[in-house]
Amino acid sequence: MKIVIVGGGFAGINLAKDLAGNKNFEVTLIDKNNYNFFPPLIYQVATAYLEPSSISYPFRKLFSRTENVRFRLGEVLSVNMAENKVVLHNGELEYDRLIFATGAETNYFGMENVRKNSIPMKTLNDAIEMRNKLLQRMERASICKNSRERRKYLNLVIAGGGPTGVEVSGMFAEMRNGVLKREYPELSTSVSNIYLVDGGDALLSPMSRQSQEDTLQALTKMGVIVKLNCRVTDFIDDTVHLNTGETIPSKNLIWAAGVSAKIFEGMPAESYGRGRRMNVDAYNKVAHTENIYSIGDTCIQLTDAAFPDGHPQVAQVAIQQGKNLAKNFKNEQKGKPLNAFKYNDKGSMAIIGKNKAVVDLPKPKMHFKGFIAWLMWLFIHLMSLISYRNRVTTFYNWMTAYFSKDQSLRMIIRPDKRAKS
Amino acid sequence: MKIVIVGGGFAGINLAKDLAGNKNFEVTLIDKNNYNFFPPLIYQVATAYLEPSSISYPFRKLFSRTENVRFRLGEVLSVNMAENKVVLHNGELEYDRLIFATGAETNYFGMENVRKNSIPMKTLNDAIEMRNKLLQRMERASICKNSRERRKYLNLVIAGGGPTGVEVSGMFAEMRNGVLKREYPELSTSVSNIYLVDGGDALLSPMSRQSQEDTLQALTKMGVIVKLNCRVTDFIDDTVHLNTGETIPSKNLIWAAGVSAKIFEGMPAESYGRGRRMNVDAYNKVAHTENIYSIGDTCIQLTDAAFPDGHPQVAQVAIQQGKNLAKNFKNEQKGKPLNAFKYNDKGSMAIIGKNKAVVDLPKPKMHFKGFIAWLMWLFIHLMSLISYRNRVTTFYNWMTAYFSKDQSLRMIIRPDKRAKS
Repeated sequence: MKIVIVGGGFAGINLAKDLAGNKNFEVTLIDKNNYNFFPPLIYQVATAYLEPSSISYPFRKLFSRTENVRFRLGEVLSVNMAENKVVLHNGELEYDRLIFATGAETNYFGMENVRKNSIPMKTLNDAIEMRNKLLQRMERASICKNSRERRKYLNLVIAGGGPTGVEVSGMFAEMRNGVLKREYPELSTSVSNIYLVDGGDALLSPMSRQSQEDTLQALTKMGVIVKLNCRVTDFIDDTVHLNTGETIPSKNLIWAAGVSAKIFEGMPAESYGRGRRMNVDAYNKVAHTENIYSIGDTCIQLTDAAFPDGHPQVAQVAIQQGKNLAKNFKNEQKGKPLNAFKYNDKGSMAIIGKNKAVVDLPKPKMHFKGFIAWLMWLFIHLMSLISYRNRVTTFYNWMTAYFSKDQSLRMIIRPDKRAKS
Repeated sequence: MKIVIVGGGFAGINLAKDLAGNKNFEVTLIDKNNYNFFPPLIYQVATAYLEPSSISYPFRKLFSRTENVRFRLGEVLSVNMAENKVVLHNGELEYDRLIFATGAETNYFGMENVRKNSIPMKTLNDAIEMRNKLLQRMERASICKNSRERRKYLNLVIAGGGPTGVEVSGMFAEMRNGVLKREYPELSTSVSNIYLVDGGDALLSPMSRQSQEDTLQALTKMGVIVKLNCRVTDFIDDTVHLNTGETIPSKNLIWAAGVSAKIFEGMPAESYGRGRRMNVDAYNKVAHTENIYSIGDTCIQLTDAAFPDGHPQVAQVAIQQGKNLAKNFKNEQKGKPLNAFKYNDKGSMAIIGKNKAVVDLPKPKMHFKGFIAWLMWLFIHLMSLISYRNRVTTFYNWMTAYFSKDQSLRMIIRPDKRAKS
């Protein structure tokens, strides 16, 4: 049976791995990158605490020992449902089962200036771009004679108070007090503010009240200016406009405020639901299709009684849906009944800074904060990395950063020459 | 005294380090990158055996604890000798002493098609570009149905039989027999040839006859097609043209065949000598200037009796000239006589493949090859890396590559979207 998986993130990779070695399936994994990466840590690449290679791994190496899984570098342009073919920018592939595991992409809610001028935080390339841009702007600030102008280079505005927004603000707050002072003596008397802006009335909205409050308190203590019930409305002429009428002079708007799924040509319009996510049944089959499935952030499943509005777009849902679908494909082959998907919530966590994190566990319902939560965060993230190599280098980098209170990865490598700094 | 150093390679960095901490000197180091890198290992970045960060280090971190050395990101546009000012793309700086340590750049000998279509191997950005390009071409080859067309993607032509050319051909020969077979099953029956082309009658021209012969023999045994007394004359329509009339169908011409120094506006034309290198006296002062110096690959010094045609453009000359100049600046302050530069040749070496290298030592005159030479090469290169961190990560990567016979860094990261693959 020809299985074609589009997208090698948490969902796609887990499906492929669980089908690997089973001769009944001839699996092709399509991705527009030649590597899998670990999104929870891209903010550490963006802030030069980890190398891109520490959180990514080439697909071809991942499947070099499994004969029934092949990799194909390509971007899906459309689906030909009548002929069971998927059309790529560089060819086409036939399928018996097609699976969309294409994740989500940054949503700017139609704000064209924000799209053009802000820094997204969704892909590994985004992270490298952010690292290069911010380092270049620091250099510009260091030779800037006008203090008003200089402040625009140094002020940081982070939109979106989810884990990414919280983690990146905490990281910047720590760098401001350490690295910046040591390595940019030219800027020692300059003011730089870090703003974290969120439309809701709490940070980390899906977490417990207690985690939200601990996080707000910790970030405020570190000097981050948190603005709740507040949205970015425009970003033009180096000025961030908020819906409260306030403006912040800054060249650096980091956009972690929303995601949206992608529409694929050839798929029935009725297959798409809220946020462009594909409507799927309890077995992740896409509505109005016969042999097309969707797993992870790109689908929405309204059949799980505990989650009447659909599951949160998090790694655990994607992983579990990938594994469940693999099981169902195997069950189908054996003539066994299929398993309806049921999400097993293992909890959620966010890191705020050195020695500080918050963790919520659902069963038994528990909350951790501070050093113990921070250790839990480190351990879980380290163990979730895809290979032994990535775990070793990440661990080494973290130890270096922790004990030397510093990191030496602040190289501007392959800056985009077309971009203005 | 205001010391302005242009270029933070081997020469510039050694001068800056030896002046660091001496309050008589106010040093500014200018570079167009914000990091120092280790050129002898860029071929390992290009072949995905090392990460860029393992062989590079940010200048600001390097000098974060030395108050009298400041870093300035910028490109030198011209020199105003009358006013003792150097003009950058983003401002200008005054100097009492100006030092050019700007190295050399790739020389295409006027062949415009070669410049446009070949892959250079001089900078860290070149190396990342090469990695991305070759990986993209492998992907293209893997979906190419036409075997003649596929061969163009897979054939590699390396121009220049110096250490870089030798090392990169050896690396490719090993990858072809290992990684390629495992990770690109689609290509298992395809032919890919590796050609190493050099205009001279031996590889590694400055090394001993014995090293040259050992190298030729080892590469030939590994399947590299070595063509001596042979030059590339054109590279067009995916075809490499040689002066022998022969043509090789290939999209991949790696250019390591020559370097040339750079001309700076405002410098007297008479200051430049052979290969655009600045003529310097025994103290590295540039001819026809009062307070401008030049060290490393970018200068030519005809005053060293042992080297009547000038020194070879190698790391050791650059390092020793940087150190000697620092000493002379200090001597000058103390009213002591200046030291004429004398090159102390510590020998030369090249790695050919796993367990294989050649090493020539001058005093006592000795030659090593095979495993012992390979260990010497590894040790010397490891110890020459700039920081403890770089040594650890490089060592770890080498061990991984050696024992697992593989490496997992083959990610296409930040490909240049403008480039055709």
